[in-house]
Amino acid sequence: MKFGGTSVADLDRIRHVATLVAGEVKRGHQVAVVVSAMAGETNKLVAWTNDAANPPGGNGHGVANAREYDVVVAAGEQVTAGLLAVTLNAMGVPARSWLGWQIPMKTSSVHGAARIEGVDAAAMKKSMAAGEVAVVAGFQGVADGERISTLGRGGSDTSAVAVAAGLGAERCDIYTDVDGVYTTDPRIVPKARRLPMIAFEEMLEMASLGAKVLQTRSVEIAMLHRVPVRVLSTFTPEAGGTLLCDEEKIVEKKPVTGIAYSRDEAKITLHKIPDRPGIASAIFGPLAEAGVNVDMIVQNVSEDGTTDLTFTVTRGELKRALGAIQTHADTIRFRDITHDAAVAKVSIIGIGMRAHPGVAQTMFKTLSDKGINIQVISTSEIKVSVLIEEEYVELAVRALHTAYELDAA
Amino acid sequence: MKFGGTSVADLDRIRHVATLVAGEVKRGHQVAVVVSAMAGETNKLVAWTNDAANPPGGNGHGVANAREYDVVVAAGEQVTAGLLAVTLNAMGVPARSWLGWQIPMKTSSVHGAARIEGVDAAAMKKSMAAGEVAVVAGFQGVADGERISTLGRGGSDTSAVAVAAGLGAERCDIYTDVDGVYTTDPRIVPKARRLPMIAFEEMLEMASLGAKVLQTRSVEIAMLHRVPVRVLSTFTPEAGGTLLCDEEKIVEKKPVTGIAYSRDEAKITLHKIPDRPGIASAIFGPLAEAGVNVDMIVQNVSEDGTTDLTFTVTRGELKRALGAIQTHADTIRFRDITHDAAVAKVSIIGIGMRAHPGVAQTMFKTLSDKGINIQVISTSEIKVSVLIEEEYVELAVRALHTAYELDAA
Repeated sequence: MKFGGTSVADLDRIRHVATLVAGEVKRGHQVAVVVSAMAGETNKLVAWTNDAANPPGGNGHGVANAREYDVVVAAGEQVTAGLLAVTLNAMGVPARSWLGWQIPMKTSSVHGAARIEGVDAAAMKKSMAAGEVAVVAGFQGVADGERISTLGRGGSDTSAVAVAAGLGAERCDIYTDVDGVYTTDPRIVPKARRLPMIAFEEMLEMASLGAKVLQTRSVEIAMLHRVPVRVLSTFTPEAGGTLLCDEEKIVEKKPVTGIAYSRDEAKITLHKIPDRPGIASAIFGPLAEAGVNVDMIVQNVSEDGTTDLTFTVTRGELKRALGAIQTHADTIRFRDITHDAAVAKVSIIGIGMRAHPGVAQTMFKTLSDKGINIQVISTSEIKVSVLIEEEYVELAVRALHTAYELDAA
Repeated sequence: MKFGGTSVADLDRIRHVATLVAGEVKRGHQVAVVVSAMAGETNKLVAWTNDAANPPGGNGHGVANAREYDVVVAAGEQVTAGLLAVTLNAMGVPARSWLGWQIPMKTSSVHGAARIEGVDAAAMKKSMAAGEVAVVAGFQGVADGERISTLGRGGSDTSAVAVAAGLGAERCDIYTDVDGVYTTDPRIVPKARRLPMIAFEEMLEMASLGAKVLQTRSVEIAMLHRVPVRVLSTFTPEAGGTLLCDEEKIVEKKPVTGIAYSRDEAKITLHKIPDRPGIASAIFGPLAEAGVNVDMIVQNVSEDGTTDLTFTVTRGELKRALGAIQTHADTIRFRDITHDAAVAKVSIIGIGMRAHPGVAQTMFKTLSDKGINIQVISTSEIKVSVLIEEEYVELAVRALHTAYELDAA
């Protein structure tokens, strides 16, 4: 079981969580429960580290030492894990807390954004077999066997799936503030429907294309280890949630399962670059060196030996990307560079696409009928993404939701 | 260097602490710095554990699981240690934090009030030799090699002295909100003087008899390992503070060095108990079993085969003590039991007492001249304590301070 920050925001909510845990214990299950920091705590701790790294009179660009940042921030989950264990014990349910270093949850040493390398669940299993609920501090691990590491924001989902995989758990229940995975964002499309099941591959695309229900890395680990993951609401768990599972288990395969969107997009276009071999590496090499992740790329047909090249990055990396291009202007030799941060990406996702040809065509026609111009297209086996003007994003998502027959009755 | 909660209460104060640390580094010293939780944090965390142990509708007497209490509470020092390390690194002073389990600071497994069993300082020494300031989370250790333990309130002083002993440090500087150890509490006696030096033995008596400058256990460890400890002010360190040292180093030995008092006293009298062998064990056995610490004891001269016996306990243990006595009323056979919590203990302390006879007599006469009745007396080689009515405590301390010529000119 995994509970996020809003589910453990105060002592009353922690007690509610303890009740849900006690219910599973009563049903005869051995339970490990992964918790995030109380809502707001992580932000407070991060702000403190930022303050500590920026003395008054400085330029305000100081970055906290990453190892020590992790020491401070990991305290948030430690407190919640301890409090939940206290609460469970007070209710007569034996429980003990497990911090990253105690499990141990081994991670890479990229502090602040560490990657789980392995969960040695032997000690935890022994404790659970002896009747103790394992209360795991999410989001944290241990690097190099001795330093506290954190997984980056949202990492508690990943902790939970990794612990479930390590334990060989029957299921990993992610309790959150929504009651499952929807066909699209219900705030934009009131007719969005909860999906009772979704294939791992689809969820991975949904998460990486903008759906915020689960962290991408957690879905990767679930898919890799085939851990059945259930997403359900802390406040109305009886609603049933959504089960992530192998695609074989999903009987009815519509062409499109869900629609995701992301506003965190920015577009850069290089005009009139020489259409010669090596030009792509001249552009994307410097961007990679600058740590910029390039997402969609499109190159126009060549005219008079020159061409235009457009690509997208996240908005946070736009400035860095433009800087890297300008620094290498001499080798790239473009005539002009333009950029636009008022763009958004809309994606349709579905394993059914493999069996249904013409799925993309429906997307293009639907958008065209609404007068929405497609700027860039990117496809994979089970998704099609398009870049459009940001102000059309709700319109596009609603139109596609109807076109692919996803609307609730 | 050790800094308490008020010295690290916010980011500005942590920066001030970092400046003091950087100053010592500049002077060519290798520095380990022990920090408490930010003022108020420990109280908040303790309140949360108490809340977690007491569900609504309960009797409110629930006690948090001690192991998990420690997990929650230790987070306070973890945050401060991380923040100070971030601050130092941002100032260009290489630093790394050390939590109890990382050092390791081995303790007994009495969670919530663990006793330091040993500091394995090898890893810390290596890091310090490589030029890193060691920032140690005070108040915490590791029990049974795997669980977080805490030393009980005020334990950061003890952590600091133990780390200094483990490192073989030249000196342990305890920075606090007063500028040293005084002849007595300056809030009661404005003419109290700061002592430039005090013998370990004297400080131990001062601390255990009520002076709140240092935790008793920290003085014990300092004395055992002969660690020179200096108490000085975080805000005016230039004032010089007080050095705890071997008594041989103290040249001028007045009969009395300081005067301590404690209001945390309660008196119990058993009237008309049979004056027979084994009566003391019949009384104090049950008290020991109930975990009550008995301090002063006095027994009247026997009359008609019976006697009165008076002893003192802390006010917090009064109820428990009375309960234990009542439970064993049949075996003790007293006629009556009375108690009084409006009492206080006043003590004079000084290694000079050994060489000066008649020191106690001055105390008794001084109190008698002021019309203060002495209820119980207890002595050791270097102290005399008397129990008096609480309302006379300030008067008694002031009169004794003058009588022993401790007043500042």
